[in-house]
Amino acid sequence: METLHIIKIGGNRIDDKQKLNRFLKDFATLKGKKILVHGGGKLATDTAEKLGIPTKMVNGRRVTDEATLKIAVMVYAGYINKTIVSQLQAYDCNAVGLSGADGNIIKSKKREIGTLDFGFVGDVDHANIQTELLTDLIDKSYVPVICAITHNGEGQLLNTNADTIVTKLAIALSGKYNVNLTYCFEKKGVMIDMKDDSSMIQKLHHSDYLQHLSNRKISDGMIPKLENAFEASQFGIKNVRICHAEHLLSDKPENIGTQIL
Amino acid sequence: METLHIIKIGGNRIDDKQKLNRFLKDFATLKGKKILVHGGGKLATDTAEKLGIPTKMVNGRRVTDEATLKIAVMVYAGYINKTIVSQLQAYDCNAVGLSGADGNIIKSKKREIGTLDFGFVGDVDHANIQTELLTDLIDKSYVPVICAITHNGEGQLLNTNADTIVTKLAIALSGKYNVNLTYCFEKKGVMIDMKDDSSMIQKLHHSDYLQHLSNRKISDGMIPKLENAFEASQFGIKNVRICHAEHLLSDKPENIGTQIL
Repeated sequence: METLHIIKIGGNRIDDKQKLNRFLKDFATLKGKKILVHGGGKLATDTAEKLGIPTKMVNGRRVTDEATLKIAVMVYAGYINKTIVSQLQAYDCNAVGLSGADGNIIKSKKREIGTLDFGFVGDVDHANIQTELLTDLIDKSYVPVICAITHNGEGQLLNTNADTIVTKLAIALSGKYNVNLTYCFEKKGVMIDMKDDSSMIQKLHHSDYLQHLSNRKISDGMIPKLENAFEASQFGIKNVRICHAEHLLSDKPENIGTQIL
Repeated sequence: METLHIIKIGGNRIDDKQKLNRFLKDFATLKGKKILVHGGGKLATDTAEKLGIPTKMVNGRRVTDEATLKIAVMVYAGYINKTIVSQLQAYDCNAVGLSGADGNIIKSKKREIGTLDFGFVGDVDHANIQTELLTDLIDKSYVPVICAITHNGEGQLLNTNADTIVTKLAIALSGKYNVNLTYCFEKKGVMIDMKDDSSMIQKLHHSDYLQHLSNRKISDGMIPKLENAFEASQFGIKNVRICHAEHLLSDKPENIGTQIL
């Protein structure tokens, strides 16, 4: 099977144009078949604020009412996605920006109202990913750039977590490609103390993760990302790592980040 | 050569969700290879207003400063494009939403500053259209849905007139397909008196157009659309018509609209 690099870039990088462009230049240089999935960043929150729409967060997740969804679609699928695509084109990378509605790639299900109503948020099962458009594009040397907007197949767009999307895409595509999954963010990897680079874990086994978790040695913000990374690993993806966005191309051992085993 | 339907839907239809969905249902039903190009509508102006960004119009064209461009990209490439795509998916039409930056389809040139600075507005030459992504998609039965955002190839997105885009795309694709070009809008066709449906011109020859123009019998708003339609016709596209969005599928002779000859 051919190797396919699937890279996630977080919102933090997207907010800083210079840092984003440096990352995109590296991504453009990366050889072989590849897909980029991007998060949101602050622009959606800023735009909502300027429009007088209050941002409601519950457990670190945005509650997406109709007005907030509209802004998420505008910012993620519109401004951020096309800004990334045009910059990649400038770096001679033939990018094609997509949402989950395009080519019906990602059909999601509006989250059911439990103790909390998250609003227009879509949950994704990897069985509901249609890989045809992606493989058609990849096999013709295009580079899909995917935002975290999905749809329910009945005309409703839904907001979805970008870490979840990249994970489900990686699982769905692992039948056809030898997937190399990289979550890029603003830290060197998973650290016991997020402020101390030397506490980085180079290889993280699931049993160790569970122990760190029970000892509360993993910061809350890292848990959803790690849950996703382990899910990918458990579905048979051999190369899963969490690393600094600036280390995408680095072959220095200390820059590999945290490998998920 | 195979027939390719290229349809433009104007901003007016987009503002009314019910009318838009009725049009999209018709478009989804249309058999064979097809492309949809959409305009903008009022949402960009409304959003700019709410954000306190003044809209500057000169000769019926928006002057696009950086803040206005950002909104245009958010609204056209984001909200409107993805709303149309997800609705078409609901009608079993496998739509893929694209801007001119995606797959480098439409490389434009920032309009030079003459007596007026239009800002981030891109002019398009049909020679700078890369049809590869579109033909790759069409030949796999996807339906491209294209917004009027282009790029200069150096990382700058640019705002472009949707009638111009559809025309240049039709010309660029006419080498490979037998193009059927339809400009859909909110009137039955080109009328001598825009308020009187019975004054509609069924077949408009270029010589008659020039005469109507010199007699000031063509309303100002129709001139750019007609200039585009005649350009397409002069480049050899045989089926060019301007018709009501509700008459896309009608085979009644009175609903054909104005044919450009």
